[in-house]
Amino acid sequence: MNRNEGKIVLGHGNGGPMMHDLIKDLFLKYFGNVIINEQTDAAVFPVKSQKLAFTTDSYVIDPIFFPGGNIGKLAVCGTVNDLAVSGAEPCYLSVSFIIEEGFAMKDLEVIVKSLAEEAQKANVLIVTGDTKVVNNGKCDKLFINTAGIGFVSKKNELISKALNINPGDVILINGTIGDHGMAVMNERESFKFKMKVISDCASLNKLIHEILEQSSTVKFMRDPTRGGVAGVLNELSEKIYMGIEIDESLLPVNKGVKAMCELLGYDPLHIANEGKVLIVADEQESKYILEIMQKNSLGTNSAIIGRVVSDHPGKVALKTLAGGHRIVGSLVGDPLPRIC
Amino acid sequence: MNRNEGKIVLGHGNGGPMMHDLIKDLFLKYFGNVIINEQTDAAVFPVKSQKLAFTTDSYVIDPIFFPGGNIGKLAVCGTVNDLAVSGAEPCYLSVSFIIEEGFAMKDLEVIVKSLAEEAQKANVLIVTGDTKVVNNGKCDKLFINTAGIGFVSKKNELISKALNINPGDVILINGTIGDHGMAVMNERESFKFKMKVISDCASLNKLIHEILEQSSTVKFMRDPTRGGVAGVLNELSEKIYMGIEIDESLLPVNKGVKAMCELLGYDPLHIANEGKVLIVADEQESKYILEIMQKNSLGTNSAIIGRVVSDHPGKVALKTLAGGHRIVGSLVGDPLPRIC
Repeated sequence: MNRNEGKIVLGHGNGGPMMHDLIKDLFLKYFGNVIINEQTDAAVFPVKSQKLAFTTDSYVIDPIFFPGGNIGKLAVCGTVNDLAVSGAEPCYLSVSFIIEEGFAMKDLEVIVKSLAEEAQKANVLIVTGDTKVVNNGKCDKLFINTAGIGFVSKKNELISKALNINPGDVILINGTIGDHGMAVMNERESFKFKMKVISDCASLNKLIHEILEQSSTVKFMRDPTRGGVAGVLNELSEKIYMGIEIDESLLPVNKGVKAMCELLGYDPLHIANEGKVLIVADEQESKYILEIMQKNSLGTNSAIIGRVVSDHPGKVALKTLAGGHRIVGSLVGDPLPRIC
Repeated sequence: MNRNEGKIVLGHGNGGPMMHDLIKDLFLKYFGNVIINEQTDAAVFPVKSQKLAFTTDSYVIDPIFFPGGNIGKLAVCGTVNDLAVSGAEPCYLSVSFIIEEGFAMKDLEVIVKSLAEEAQKANVLIVTGDTKVVNNGKCDKLFINTAGIGFVSKKNELISKALNINPGDVILINGTIGDHGMAVMNERESFKFKMKVISDCASLNKLIHEILEQSSTVKFMRDPTRGGVAGVLNELSEKIYMGIEIDESLLPVNKGVKAMCELLGYDPLHIANEGKVLIVADEQESKYILEIMQKNSLGTNSAIIGRVVSDHPGKVALKTLAGGHRIVGSLVGDPLPRIC
């Protein structure tokens, strides 16, 4: 880490020797593997099946460090999960940094390190990257884009299309909702709530692999990030033009998240998750799938939370604790910007 | 473009109905194809050969509109070229936007439209994307990340590795150098030089395809973007541990670029290009390759500019117009930040 005395400067993004030192001393130190070490303009590697899945996300979360993770870990989990819910085995990631001039090198190292660790945990290789530095004040500390490639087996090709859903199908989730959004909010606004709220930020590909290996009636999966569980279920109910009914008494919500949401006037159904997957499956097999999920450490609190119904097509209804029903819409506006 | 009265607001990035309207009314309007229209978390498509090439770049250019292009066109050209110089046929792109709250919808539409047009021209499909909106002042107008996937035929697998270069091999370029950097600089600083300087921003995959189809001795290709021709040649000479000699009298430089560089004290060899490729080839075939290049509209001013030598390994020497020799180093620091 010579020549730069602990701060990112514009020269780290100019394509010259300073950038090459940064790549060698930091990025390759943590990301190094036979593919990225070639340092070519594009990574070249063999395909593993005849169908590819390809996704991208830019991460602009504020703050970049939060209980349960940081922007680096998140940039792996988010993209890995987008591939996994599409029925793909995530394999390769690209990582692109936009860094504000003056950003502390030691913070960058912490972020790069957790990014590399999460990639290793999720069993994906970082194979190509890019670094841009912008003048002070022209971005907010650090943005990261990851794009991901996965391979899709014939058996799982149709999962992302939600083609075979019928009324009576069951909706499962692998644990408590709203943890990520409320952890970030708590950290950002320094509310200092006593109850600890920790982001659920995690790569779900191993959990999803276990489910798809052992069951055959998973009809749809989606990770409820921005827009929360309500966002995904609304999108789904509109797409299949059926109704969805969820039961408030079955929704797993952590005490801290519940308390924060009540105080701030949020609905946990609208709050972002980064380690959750919603699954639609045939009712017959749903208890079996639930057992598989509960055995995985990322699914201890898994639950069946509702079902697809033929009533109120295109709408999501919540059976409340009080016994009534209310329609749960999607968020309009953004009360919680920069949550991912 | 209902609900937003001409400006991007935070709600356009929240995963809810406003974001979906933006995707439908703007992005799908221009990018639409059978793959992206599925609107799944990850695009799924068949592979076309047994080796993939994968690359990413974030574009933070300032200003976002410049003579010869804009950030949208550039985001296609840059990533397509990174794939093409690796010997791949570029096929699929992801596009991720980070947009500053308040950004004018009509500017976004112009950018999205030229991005789509350039993708069509380069024959690549945009198959997946992402949109983030950050608060006013937290990024500079608009950043775009593209990641790209290409397929590599057996014949071209080794091009990116620069394995077979020998002293005597010849260095070619497909036209004038420094146009992109100086066009952006001129626009940014409002120098109002009378001579028109226009960015060379272009997708080179068709030109490169023609060269690789008709010749068999291309040993290395690279697009000299940030760091310019000097950056690429220095990296290459260090990698192969041979010398490189280029001849100032053979370097194609536009009059306007020459004049600007002289006035501002820059060396065109250090200035970024976005529509240029440096090619190393066997001397025997070099004139034939030059002819192929000159027949393509993106190679009219192609030239042989130098050669690989056994002297001064790891260093690039310029034979000056005055007849002397000087070593051309890489840039340290960044006199021209945010050029791409």
